[in-house]
Amino acid sequence: MSSRKVAGPEIETLIQLLAKLPGLGPRSARRAALHLIQKKDQLFAPLTRAMEVALEEVRVCSTCGNIDTSDPCTICADPRRDGTTIVVVEDVSDLWALERAQAINARYHVLGGTLSPLDGVTPEDLKIADLVERVRAGGVVEVILAVNATVEGQTTAHYVTDQLAGLDVKVSRLAHGVPVGGELDYLDEGTLAQALRARTPF
Amino acid sequence: MSSRKVAGPEIETLIQLLAKLPGLGPRSARRAALHLIQKKDQLFAPLTRAMEVALEEVRVCSTCGNIDTSDPCTICADPRRDGTTIVVVEDVSDLWALERAQAINARYHVLGGTLSPLDGVTPEDLKIADLVERVRAGGVVEVILAVNATVEGQTTAHYVTDQLAGLDVKVSRLAHGVPVGGELDYLDEGTLAQALRARTPF
Repeated sequence: MSSRKVAGPEIETLIQLLAKLPGLGPRSARRAALHLIQKKDQLFAPLTRAMEVALEEVRVCSTCGNIDTSDPCTICADPRRDGTTIVVVEDVSDLWALERAQAINARYHVLGGTLSPLDGVTPEDLKIADLVERVRAGGVVEVILAVNATVEGQTTAHYVTDQLAGLDVKVSRLAHGVPVGGELDYLDEGTLAQALRARTPF
Repeated sequence: MSSRKVAGPEIETLIQLLAKLPGLGPRSARRAALHLIQKKDQLFAPLTRAMEVALEEVRVCSTCGNIDTSDPCTICADPRRDGTTIVVVEDVSDLWALERAQAINARYHVLGGTLSPLDGVTPEDLKIADLVERVRAGGVVEVILAVNATVEGQTTAHYVTDQLAGLDVKVSRLAHGVPVGGELDYLDEGTLAQALRARTPF
């Protein structure tokens, strides 16, 4: 809105806060606010209610670091999950992405970031000790490091592997290679080199 | 999220409702929900509070149809606004757009849409009679039709003009032509023809 006052401060505040959501900017936040106001009963009221409930109920799982409305979280509490495998991820968004793929029925461990000495992120800032504790408690056969294929992710993976050394657990990491549906022409040299090195019998 | 249960229903509900905001889809709604949860105190709580307040306070101005937290709205109640000019717009979003331009210090009238017989939108569905009433009440010198340059917008403009005929008021419409910053090469023939017809002395 302009510096000229055209609406009550309540609407301006709403727009400014909506603009802080990822994916929305000042312009789309204004559109979103208007959409909410014009769909008061169908969307505005239910969304407000859902936010009140989520704000009240959401907590971090004390076992794995997942976000849920219960602690332990739905995944940690699910007896059908294979508790012998722990998939280690950087963030909850990665956990959600892996769950969408429905590729594994394991438990998770959210580190809460990656090691980054320049940004002041040390091992103590991540839930690495908690992971070692979970493995030490027994029953875990494999730890899968599902971290991002970035320098920070790989550094963190190496550090976690070191911490798990000496414990009776298999440590693996995600395969690197050509993404499914990917075209070679568009891939970077590092990915192509890795895909060649890790080639499999056809 | 997947059909597999990975989080409590409260979070799924929140994501589904966020996905209904314009500018957000299922994927970005998930990201937005996670962002909210991870910025609980800085964003989630204040936004929820702002929504509660706006949901409670927002109303439609009974004079002009603007959306505000007071009735009459901030614009209608502002004594520094020139009440002799009424700018007629289709939607509140158009009013907000004109206010951002800060080009006029007039009052507004929101029709709430355009005439569209195929969609069953008749003059009774729009606030046209209210506009005629406002003009008839006196004190209005000019009505500026700031409707979209679409077939429906122009049809509505003609209808409104007919309804105002006989009343002592000047009716004008927005100029059509080359948008400021526009390149001729990219403009449609209709705009170019109109810009030529309405050429002004240099």
